[in-house]
Amino acid sequence: MTIFVINPNSSQHVTDGINRAVDPMRAASPVPIEARTLHEGPPGIETQAHVDGVVGPMLAHCADLQDRASAFVVACYSDPGLAALREQSACPVLGIAEASILTAMTLGQRFGIISILSASIPRHMRYVGAMGVMDRLAGDQPLELGVLELADEDRTFERLKQVGGTLRDTAMADVLILGCAGMTAFRTDLENHLGLPVVEPCQAATAMAIGRVALEHTR
Amino acid sequence: MTIFVINPNSSQHVTDGINRAVDPMRAASPVPIEARTLHEGPPGIETQAHVDGVVGPMLAHCADLQDRASAFVVACYSDPGLAALREQSACPVLGIAEASILTAMTLGQRFGIISILSASIPRHMRYVGAMGVMDRLAGDQPLELGVLELADEDRTFERLKQVGGTLRDTAMADVLILGCAGMTAFRTDLENHLGLPVVEPCQAATAMAIGRVALEHTR
Amino acid sequence: MTIFVINPNSSQHVTDGINRAVDPMRAASPVPIEARTLHEGPPGIETQAHVDGVVGPMLAHCADLQDRASAFVVACYSDPGLAALREQSACPVLGIAEASILTAMTLGQRFGIISILSASIPRHMRYVGAMGVMDRLAGDQPLELGVLELADEDRTFERLKQVGGTLRDTAMADVLILGCAGMTAFRTDLENHLGLPVVEPCQAATAMAIGRVALEHTR
Amino acid sequence: MTIFVINPNSSQHVTDGINRAVDPMRAASPVPIEARTLHEGPPGIETQAHVDGVVGPMLAHCADLQDRASAFVVACYSDPGLAALREQSACPVLGIAEASILTAMTLGQRFGIISILSASIPRHMRYVGAMGVMDRLAGDQPLELGVLELADEDRTFERLKQVGGTLRDTAMADVLILGCAGMTAFRTDLENHLGLPVVEPCQAATAMAIGRVALEHTR
Amino acid sequence: MTIFVINPNSSQHVTDGINRAVDPMRAASPVPIEARTLHEGPPGIETQAHVDGVVGPMLAHCADLQDRASAFVVACYSDPGLAALREQSACPVLGIAEASILTAMTLGQRFGIISILSASIPRHMRYVGAMGVMDRLAGDQPLELGVLELADEDRTFERLKQVGGTLRDTAMADVLILGCAGMTAFRTDLENHLGLPVVEPCQAATAMAIGRVALEHTR
Amino acid sequence: MTIFVINPNSSQHVTDGINRAVDPMRAASPVPIEARTLHEGPPGIETQAHVDGVVGPMLAHCADLQDRASAFVVACYSDPGLAALREQSACPVLGIAEASILTAMTLGQRFGIISILSASIPRHMRYVGAMGVMDRLAGDQPLELGVLELADEDRTFERLKQVGGTLRDTAMADVLILGCAGMTAFRTDLENHLGLPVVEPCQAATAMAIGRVALEHTR
Repeated sequence: MTIFVINPNSSQHVTDGINRAVDPMRAASPVPIEARTLHEGPPGIETQAHVDGVVGPMLAHCADLQDRASAFVVACYSDPGLAALREQSACPVLGIAEASILTAMTLGQRFGIISILSASIPRHMRYVGAMGVMDRLAGDQPLELGVLELADEDRTFERLKQVGGTLRDTAMADVLILGCAGMTAFRTDLENHLGLPVVEPCQAATAMAIGRVALEHTR
Repeated sequence: MTIFVINPNSSQHVTDGINRAVDPMRAASPVPIEARTLHEGPPGIETQAHVDGVVGPMLAHCADLQDRASAFVVACYSDPGLAALREQSACPVLGIAEASILTAMTLGQRFGIISILSASIPRHMRYVGAMGVMDRLAGDQPLELGVLELADEDRTFERLKQVGGTLRDTAMADVLILGCAGMTAFRTDLENHLGLPVVEPCQAATAMAIGRVALEHTR
Repeated sequence: MTIFVINPNSSQHVTDGINRAVDPMRAASPVPIEARTLHEGPPGIETQAHVDGVVGPMLAHCADLQDRASAFVVACYSDPGLAALREQSACPVLGIAEASILTAMTLGQRFGIISILSASIPRHMRYVGAMGVMDRLAGDQPLELGVLELADEDRTFERLKQVGGTLRDTAMADVLILGCAGMTAFRTDLENHLGLPVVEPCQAATAMAIGRVALEHTR
Repeated sequence: MTIFVINPNSSQHVTDGINRAVDPMRAASPVPIEARTLHEGPPGIETQAHVDGVVGPMLAHCADLQDRASAFVVACYSDPGLAALREQSACPVLGIAEASILTAMTLGQRFGIISILSASIPRHMRYVGAMGVMDRLAGDQPLELGVLELADEDRTFERLKQVGGTLRDTAMADVLILGCAGMTAFRTDLENHLGLPVVEPCQAATAMAIGRVALEHTR
Repeated sequence: MTIFVINPNSSQHVTDGINRAVDPMRAASPVPIEARTLHEGPPGIETQAHVDGVVGPMLAHCADLQDRASAFVVACYSDPGLAALREQSACPVLGIAEASILTAMTLGQRFGIISILSASIPRHMRYVGAMGVMDRLAGDQPLELGVLELADEDRTFERLKQVGGTLRDTAMADVLILGCAGMTAFRTDLENHLGLPVVEPCQAATAMAIGRVALEHTR
Repeated sequence: MTIFVINPNSSQHVTDGINRAVDPMRAASPVPIEARTLHEGPPGIETQAHVDGVVGPMLAHCADLQDRASAFVVACYSDPGLAALREQSACPVLGIAEASILTAMTLGQRFGIISILSASIPRHMRYVGAMGVMDRLAGDQPLELGVLELADEDRTFERLKQVGGTLRDTAMADVLILGCAGMTAFRTDLENHLGLPVVEPCQAATAMAIGRVALEHTR
């Protein structure tokens, strides 16, 4: 049995980053953790059509894995197909956006989200509203860096420090969330720089999945 | 140019019902109104997987119609693909759930939703939360009648009266919404029986689309 | 039958501006649209006493028009007498504040309001709260320009660009509302400058009234 | 100097009831308390038009009293003209609806409102929304007794017990508010019967006014 | 290193029940799980004074354990001292009320809480408000069974079925939470009877602690 | 009988400041007002452990005073033990945080809180959430001045003007609250400088207590 972390885009290097991010947790997990690429997905999930479009292939992919699945983690910050996968699967299903927010709610009172692009913020706001936790949101601010630009690590970290600092000082955030599956490498440095807890969503969701696999033992 | 009302399920009789529901508005519309069936859709949209699954075909269907479209109405009470279609299309796009709620907000202070099945209520609650209007919701109560059972009009109207009465008297709803595209025939009788305004969502959304087509003239 | 747009202040030039703003929609409306001045009103509605004070004369004015009315639009951003007029009149009644907000809720996820003066913001906040849509509000920021100063179009547009830009960039608004009946001339230019949809409230409410007149045909 | 409690309807017996309700507080007040009838008002305030219509005369009435006023209390559960009177007057101004709700918020966690008629509930809901305290509302339920029927004290008390019991047991209210200026006589008996604190709004607002008169001494 | 589950009352049989409840998770936990009794606590935590009173001794107790602690779980449904213990301790700290609510938010859209006594509901409501998740609450209904009466298992289960059924059918809850650390034995039977997921809070919090211990490995 | 204002820290100079702040109200109070120092408290209440730790001694202190108490005011901006003291005491009990917020809600539509240190803001946010009034909060911004630094009055007033100005101009606060019992001396000057009402919490709570003592006469 395995915890499957599904990267719903087709970029193997994103899956590789998720693998590195969750690797330290493998020793503490009662089951293996396997990050998988959804080859039918687009290279990156940037629009609402991308979000909706990966649901069908992802449900099929997870149906094939079901017999070996202890839990599923949907590893895209729009949590595509989360509700549908929960309807389809009897095992625990976590989404990285939802899990990162729930985790942040135990680490601070007002969470700030650092998004890649401002275009994704309305989608996040609909989701925070659907979760019913708008009163805990300090703010959601964009890096305004495209996917290619993210590869420039110095520039990305510079923007992370700026945006995170604004959320901390102006919006009074006391915990931050990296609003994308592709920024795992910056978490610790950003935490040290800003003096606030920073939640990396793939790690947060996988951690919660580990707990839920344990919880299933009580059934 | 035309207002296209898209029924994202494949049941022609549902499309026919929508056509009858909006027919009286044709005389008042500056453009024709055309209800269409999405043949790629399932016979009825009952699960979250159905909701997510129709988005791709519906976006393609609407892309083909774009040159002739004054506006689009998505005629399923889960508003599948509403955000994606708005990203894709430059003309006004309305969803029947959103439009019925916004219309109800001008007719009363607390709206009640009459759902077909309790299974759809969590989906509605996520949506009401995403819209940020939870404080206006009086309640959402199910008929608990399956699609086949709806065909028994006497029984359906009996349940509509019961559930609507409970929303009015116990939950203090002062306006009701029919939470499904397939109950258009009952609106007036229910309104008369309960003494409250009842919003039929296909009509409400098409009416709003007519207004928005007019508004486009100001650009 | 006619859609009456009631300017509850006594300034004919404001009524003239409303007329110009809604003029392009006349071709698409099933009934004539007539903007009217409430001669009993003050030259401008600036205080809560003004808001409350125009209700009585406006109700009388509308009672006289009732037999010829398809719908009423109350054209002051405080929506004076909206609830009372709905109690008095059987036809659709829209207010420009309410309708602009409901319209903005279909064009973006977080609306920003551009007010004339900071003194009107508490009144707006009570109203947004009464509507139950506070979670959709990005912010409400004032031009701090008096009515006379508004006549200086260059200066007004300069301030509109500044305040709108702050709402977009700092408060993360993705749709803006002109919070006054007297700024209709600036909508398109502001939209182009900021790259966001801008809702002019007299247009939005009249458009919604056109839709509602069509909807009445279903009764 | 005097605390003026303004009954904005023209019924002297309502003013008399208010006088009796606040009488025990006179000994504890630093200034006299005087209940006054607004003779220009309607016999009872039952519609939104009534609410809006009394504002003008009430502002004039209070302007005449201003030189002798320590504070004003608006004694109608719709708080007509509260915001306008605050703009007009430099001394403390309290409304019985607002003050009763703020007082209830210190006596319990979820307040229930007992209204006379269901027709007033949408008005109350707009007000609770404008106050931003919807999350503290357990419910608002009507006696459905007209003003004449209220005179039947046995029947009224019977209904108060029923409605209050429903709010306590079904809606989990832990404090109740009498949502009308005309039920002062029942407070203590209802409190004893239900075992919950019951807030009589004229008393609550006048008590708060006494405190605010004291607070003015710190200026 | 150990996950310490602190029962802040002095009743060993409650601690024993917690031990049984979390026992199946021990095999899946990377560290031992130890339930402990706070001998300085009262036999049961029933009042706000009890809640506040156990904080000091609990902080001291946990300070002594800190060197051996992977995580702490506060096992009383009022989460006494949760914020203070988080200030004091660098390791993960979970409370059973908070964790049960966050877990329920992944299992349904509207959670219902089954409380022992109505007296604890205001305390719960303050907490749900402080968590900012009131929009997800379906309702909180009491068994109205005292601690001694809980020992009568047949009667307790009868009440659990009644109250849970009311939350499901009237308040439209789609997930339930046992609002007390002492009802662990009934979870599975109640789940089977009602057809809804039921969250036992000690299990939910310990599961989340297991995940958080794993997450600490990423630092 | 006396209104007891309990300073739950052990610093006599804070108690002296409270005494000066409420002194002008003594002439208007029906009973004496006595500020008291809780000698068992810490010199200042800065952490959640301090907040929780003073509850026990404060409850004992108030139990001793109960026979002579008309009302209690808890004079620390974290309202330690407010709920517990209400359970223990039959007379009115006010907390300075709650009372200052309720008072501000009658003086403006959006209140801003000026805190001493950013570390107290999460505590305030939990409290504003528990009160259910988050929609009325404009913002909470810190002076970032330690207790010793507060003694430098020029510097403190400079920071009060800066932070208050930011809350007014950026967060659109129209009423401000001094979020600490130790800034009573600055209220009037800050009010004059900013042109907004400023609520000093010890005064606001004591004023409300005076009103509630009067209200008790109606029982």
